[in-house]
Amino acid sequence: MSGRTVVEARDSDQGMGGLTPDRFAGVLAQATQGWPAVPVIACGMVGSRQGWVEAPYAPVPCPAAPRMVAVPGDPGGRPVRVICGVRQDDPADVMRGEETQIAGLLALDPDFDGIACLPGTHTKWVRISAGEICNFKSFMTGELFGLIANQSVLRHSVGEGDCDPALFRDAVSDAMSRPERGYAGLFQLRAESLLSGLNPAAARARLSGTLIGWEMAAARPWWLGSQVTIIGAPALSALYADALAAQGVPAARMSVQDATLAGLSAAHRQFLQG
Amino acid sequence: MSGRTVVEARDSDQGMGGLTPDRFAGVLAQATQGWPAVPVIACGMVGSRQGWVEAPYAPVPCPAAPRMVAVPGDPGGRPVRVICGVRQDDPADVMRGEETQIAGLLALDPDFDGIACLPGTHTKWVRISAGEICNFKSFMTGELFGLIANQSVLRHSVGEGDCDPALFRDAVSDAMSRPERGYAGLFQLRAESLLSGLNPAAARARLSGTLIGWEMAAARPWWLGSQVTIIGAPALSALYADALAAQGVPAARMSVQDATLAGLSAAHRQFLQG
Repeated sequence: MSGRTVVEARDSDQGMGGLTPDRFAGVLAQATQGWPAVPVIACGMVGSRQGWVEAPYAPVPCPAAPRMVAVPGDPGGRPVRVICGVRQDDPADVMRGEETQIAGLLALDPDFDGIACLPGTHTKWVRISAGEICNFKSFMTGELFGLIANQSVLRHSVGEGDCDPALFRDAVSDAMSRPERGYAGLFQLRAESLLSGLNPAAARARLSGTLIGWEMAAARPWWLGSQVTIIGAPALSALYADALAAQGVPAARMSVQDATLAGLSAAHRQFLQG
Repeated sequence: MSGRTVVEARDSDQGMGGLTPDRFAGVLAQATQGWPAVPVIACGMVGSRQGWVEAPYAPVPCPAAPRMVAVPGDPGGRPVRVICGVRQDDPADVMRGEETQIAGLLALDPDFDGIACLPGTHTKWVRISAGEICNFKSFMTGELFGLIANQSVLRHSVGEGDCDPALFRDAVSDAMSRPERGYAGLFQLRAESLLSGLNPAAARARLSGTLIGWEMAAARPWWLGSQVTIIGAPALSALYADALAAQGVPAARMSVQDATLAGLSAAHRQFLQG
């Protein structure tokens, strides 16, 4: 990167889940072959206990500016820093990776004061004020959606396709006002599919609306009367924006890539300042 | 079987999920090798559209006595009958297999009038009156528990072990009174496990209580003021009995094996009567 601009990008599927600590240096060397010996800033699960080096969680409240630990010995001749996750003790919660996007949000909008919603595998709602992460709350919505849609009996009934906004909104509204009714509606998707040929895209919209509706109900203290910025993938962010709009909450949007790059860039500036 | 008594039992892992229709006869012949050419009564997914022969769903309300279709040609020289599932059109719902246990409940207790609760992969609550299945409701509780406990990020936090009754009851009660709070509590199990070493058996009790609590909330019209008989595996039935007792509903229990054998035996008598 040069500033917040990507000069060259490479992907690798060699992630923390499949590596022992002694193999990270080799994977990084391979991924960055031919690149100058500039500093490396890493974030996410690479800093977990099972990662390369443990980058201990910073307890809230904490500055949104990144905190980092060094990988000893400048592997491959490059300084390598790993961004620390954030933890909350009561109620217990953790994040790793999202703190970098929040640092990016603050880098791009230094006066931001409000709620960041980061939808994904484990969606986070984060209260930010005076440049600090005050507290936050995680939900397993993305992971549950994937498990139910792809691995439960509903995999036969839930398919790809455009999300019907009306079906999605109805499911959000039902799940918010009567969460237990949404629970009763899950197997019903399978039964309607067997008995009356429920459209697989409609089943997907209803399942998605049910889970996001549960999350909206549980996250009410986070979004009610708040200024919310959603940082996530476009299609998923649109669903959350739609659910919030139905509650009269206008949400700003920021791309997850913009936020992440700005966060890494902020960490790099901080590294240079020592 | 001889009446309701098992003379000899064999298991096979060659189920409907891995068989094409032309292979069922061979699997049955192998499983029953050396046995006399008595009639065969089959129930469950063998009668689904992807099974051996489709045994069409009987619509509710319908007699609890089994309805059957014949497999053409008496494969292996034995008459083979497949018990039909039951369907409900509004709200859409289906069962295959549980109708045999209900037939068994009625065979063992012909005057039964009340609710049968059949906990399992897809738990069913079934209203039975005057020898008929009136209506029913399915929940994905067992399947969701398996997916979350074994395949989500909670697999690192949820372990085997005795279920702490107090933790289970608290989770049931929380999920019943504020279902959305239970939703917020799922990722918290992971965070408590990371930050404060939450006992894996305690995490299991809380996850189980949350899901059963949601089901109890959604199934309230089924158990409130009702006579309930639970038909299921012992440990799971005990959890449901505990949750119902906390609501002041005493539940009778019947073993799933007794109910199934009584149902198959009732179907056999019906077959003999033509």
